[in-house]
Amino acid sequence: MKKTVPLYMISDAVGETSLKLVNAVAAQFPSVEFDMSYRFPFMKDEEELKGILSDALKDGAIVVTTLVSSNLTEIVSDFSNRTGLQYIDLMCPFMEIVHQKTGVSPLQEAGTVHKLNQEYFNRVAAIEFAVKYDDGKDPKGFLEADIVLLGISRTSKTPLSMYLANSRYKVANLPLIPEVPLPEQLKQVPKEKLVGLIIEPETQQKIRTSRLHSLGLQENSRYADIKRIKDELKYALEVFDDLGAFSLDVTNKSIEEAATLIAEHMDSHLSV
Amino acid sequence: MKKTVPLYMISDAVGETSLKLVNAVAAQFPSVEFDMSYRFPFMKDEEELKGILSDALKDGAIVVTTLVSSNLTEIVSDFSNRTGLQYIDLMCPFMEIVHQKTGVSPLQEAGTVHKLNQEYFNRVAAIEFAVKYDDGKDPKGFLEADIVLLGISRTSKTPLSMYLANSRYKVANLPLIPEVPLPEQLKQVPKEKLVGLIIEPETQQKIRTSRLHSLGLQENSRYADIKRIKDELKYALEVFDDLGAFSLDVTNKSIEEAATLIAEHMDSHLSV
Repeated sequence: MKKTVPLYMISDAVGETSLKLVNAVAAQFPSVEFDMSYRFPFMKDEEELKGILSDALKDGAIVVTTLVSSNLTEIVSDFSNRTGLQYIDLMCPFMEIVHQKTGVSPLQEAGTVHKLNQEYFNRVAAIEFAVKYDDGKDPKGFLEADIVLLGISRTSKTPLSMYLANSRYKVANLPLIPEVPLPEQLKQVPKEKLVGLIIEPETQQKIRTSRLHSLGLQENSRYADIKRIKDELKYALEVFDDLGAFSLDVTNKSIEEAATLIAEHMDSHLSV
Repeated sequence: MKKTVPLYMISDAVGETSLKLVNAVAAQFPSVEFDMSYRFPFMKDEEELKGILSDALKDGAIVVTTLVSSNLTEIVSDFSNRTGLQYIDLMCPFMEIVHQKTGVSPLQEAGTVHKLNQEYFNRVAAIEFAVKYDDGKDPKGFLEADIVLLGISRTSKTPLSMYLANSRYKVANLPLIPEVPLPEQLKQVPKEKLVGLIIEPETQQKIRTSRLHSLGLQENSRYADIKRIKDELKYALEVFDDLGAFSLDVTNKSIEEAATLIAEHMDSHLSV
């Protein structure tokens, strides 16, 4: 039987940082089941916090905190000293180092990271841009974009565009189909902005077959035919070559990994 | 003059967790400038790591690591013991607690969190769904969605949809315009799936004015007129009331905060 470890995530803001870390740690223990349903965002109240800590102790849970308030943090550390509750404090040790280094005290204001500033508006604008110019809907987008993603069907163009938009890149994308001529505007895009996505044909076939399943369609469609996929990929590589696009193999890469590699490529190019 | 602290983020995967944490900590020190340009994802090589640590020491940097390999982690901790380099190790203390609790050893495989599993495919499908059914483009989406967001122009419907899609909710959204009749399909959506976004008129006016600026349009358009905004909001509240939608005030809330509140509402409703 799988061991189950309940994880209590307590934050005085949204608690995203904890969730990211918990997922990363959980991935290192595939034989352990982590119960991640205990999330307590926007924590303010000392009595409520004490109640949650008591529950965590009863449940044999590990507690992960992202609390900027030193009052709340002290409650957790006192409770843990008294009872042996195991916890990870993500904020305080880090804030303490910054304090030592700079002599500056932290604000201790929860949720300060989410200011509605220009950066925020740019992010919203980038997300709207990505939606507007997804799937080659409007070729005008190619001329305004920071990044133009090119690739055959099912190479993660849409989720990659959204992920990059979250980092404030304006992204347009175009599906490559051998039978459909390229839009004229594409030739005016500086080649440094073009990213061509490639994928191994066998992996692509699995993804397309699963796509057909989910759409309730037959598997033996040309869409999931290995020869057709190879033809499409060959065509895509020719296009990347003609346009001078940077090409990235997305086989077995997550959206996060592929997006990070694209952003690195863009930044390294800018700094040259 | 602002103090500048360079932050070195070293990860054997993408390094997103570090970046989230670093942003959260930086927000607590508004008078300190953090240089976040030192990002080292996909770290594998011991010699390269040693070189980066030496640079960090020279720069007076704080190092944040998300390393699952115990070899690499030991290099960082040895270096720090020898030189006094200050660092935050996000993974090891946590993995150590899990190990103590379960007796299970971690895999130490970098990037394991990004498996191409069903959860991953569902996320991609949800993002594509959100793009397809953004802005009321196709009313069929309302019937298939997990969440339908309603709101007047500039209430963050699109970025909220994308953010929720990342958590695998299928989200459709509809802009409310007093002059445009509601689509018939909306009346068939169970009211538990409907979320109405509201915002303070003055905040909305600022956002719309900034929107007009960015589009190069005149400020005195009806779009940013306070009376018009109040009329639109009054109409929206009537619609939410008629349909029995849960309503959420997004004034001064970040996308993350608003999305977390919507997800909490959905989950609390499911568990009733």
